[in-house]
Amino acid sequence: MIYGGIEAGGTKWVCAIGSGPDDVQETVTFPTTHPEETIARAAEFFSGNGALAAVGIGSFGPIDIQRTSPTWGRITTTPKPGWAGTEIVAALSAALDLPIAFDTDVNAAALGEHRWGAAVGLETFCYITVGTGIGGGGMANGHLMHGLLHPEFGHMRIPHDRDRDPFDGVCPYHGDCFEGLASGEAIRARWGSAGEENADEQIWHLEAEYLALGLVNVICAVSPERIVLGGGVMKQPQLLPLVRKQVSDMLGGYIRAPELAGDLGDYLVAPALGDRAGVLGSLELARSVA
Amino acid sequence: MIYGGIEAGGTKWVCAIGSGPDDVQETVTFPTTHPEETIARAAEFFSGNGALAAVGIGSFGPIDIQRTSPTWGRITTTPKPGWAGTEIVAALSAALDLPIAFDTDVNAAALGEHRWGAAVGLETFCYITVGTGIGGGGMANGHLMHGLLHPEFGHMRIPHDRDRDPFDGVCPYHGDCFEGLASGEAIRARWGSAGEENADEQIWHLEAEYLALGLVNVICAVSPERIVLGGGVMKQPQLLPLVRKQVSDMLGGYIRAPELAGDLGDYLVAPALGDRAGVLGSLELARSVA
Repeated sequence: MIYGGIEAGGTKWVCAIGSGPDDVQETVTFPTTHPEETIARAAEFFSGNGALAAVGIGSFGPIDIQRTSPTWGRITTTPKPGWAGTEIVAALSAALDLPIAFDTDVNAAALGEHRWGAAVGLETFCYITVGTGIGGGGMANGHLMHGLLHPEFGHMRIPHDRDRDPFDGVCPYHGDCFEGLASGEAIRARWGSAGEENADEQIWHLEAEYLALGLVNVICAVSPERIVLGGGVMKQPQLLPLVRKQVSDMLGGYIRAPELAGDLGDYLVAPALGDRAGVLGSLELARSVA
Repeated sequence: MIYGGIEAGGTKWVCAIGSGPDDVQETVTFPTTHPEETIARAAEFFSGNGALAAVGIGSFGPIDIQRTSPTWGRITTTPKPGWAGTEIVAALSAALDLPIAFDTDVNAAALGEHRWGAAVGLETFCYITVGTGIGGGGMANGHLMHGLLHPEFGHMRIPHDRDRDPFDGVCPYHGDCFEGLASGEAIRARWGSAGEENADEQIWHLEAEYLALGLVNVICAVSPERIVLGGGVMKQPQLLPLVRKQVSDMLGGYIRAPELAGDLGDYLVAPALGDRAGVLGSLELARSVA
């Protein structure tokens, strides 16, 4: 069976047709413009490429993923202009007449990593993306993390020493929440437009510290067996080792588990599927409703 | 069927025999002294009170609740003198020859509230106790929260403005983590021994702020459908309304759900089973292995 998958990001959409990492038959990538235009491009891609069993969407958010809710399938409060309230699922359903699965971009990526990547065989793990924003999802007890809505790791509050870092944070809702201090947008706003390309030690030590504070909170709240860290910011090569060191120091030996005893090299890991985790996970999401 | 339940706390153990809130046949409470003596008192209570199908233990921690682990059934890193490494399950098994279920005190309380109390019918919710320490557990996707080990909400890091509150925190591992700043022990250390009985507005506003920071992090990490707040500190009558107000303000309307729209009166709630949540939940834990 062949599926459609959409990694519906705030900057770009990646659409694929196939059934897994070794069977991607077509892909297309286009910028996230107005909702109508963007959704129409996705619908056109899928309708022009043969018979699909279902389509899976891993979307930026916040979104309503509660199947029994009257607003299921919508983006809710995003600050992205024009997108608040967008009925993604309804619009694609109307255009394609196929079963559609809908979850967060990070839950989709988590599902991809669980099926084919760095989280195979785990029951409880997290996937966190550190890009323009910070998002997180994963599985708890073998199922994708749903609840009242879905996790929003990026909006946890973390310690912020304004004497050392007087930066106010970039979150329009919370200022200096985790995303407000540690996202790619925060790096650019704090250090200038070239921040993300700058190898200056000071930048990445501070970034590692904020990321570690957020990760410690996720570890204490969810107790994941592993955390997969994706997103553009994590591509800075010195960052992941710095983050591992800081997380280990901050935990201070309190949580005793072999996974947390060494250098965390098998605990805090890069996505095995790389940048394809989201779109491949969306194919797997589709399979669940086909 | 009749079960035994133990709420194995760091200060006292509460043991009960029965099958639920309306059928508690015997209870006994005694202080947590040395492990051998404490476990022996529990064993004596159960062996002297007729045929039980199983015993459930909801224990203070951290503990090893991973059934496949070689150290399953033990307390691990507790700072409580004499208790680190205590093999609770093995000792009780040897004395009683009954099936024994073992989980955290807060997961047991969550289970009690799910079966008979404030969390009936929910799939994903949290139970947090604010007492001498701060602990948390709950259910994710309909199962008790397990993972690498179990949640440790009390050791999340939260913002701490030392200009307003120069207190260093009481956590022996992390200083000013959530528990280090907001537990009953922190209140006593910051304000003096009568802190917890003092109705001074300043005490409870600061306490509500720290609790709200921790709760916001739990909400962002787990996305619970409801949070049940137990423990001695929560008995201060003005505290829960203050906490609700602060959580609502801090979320800032970002997470759109009807449950988070009003005064949070149905979202942040007291345990319906009161102080009996833990021991009743331990009876329910026992039922799961009988």
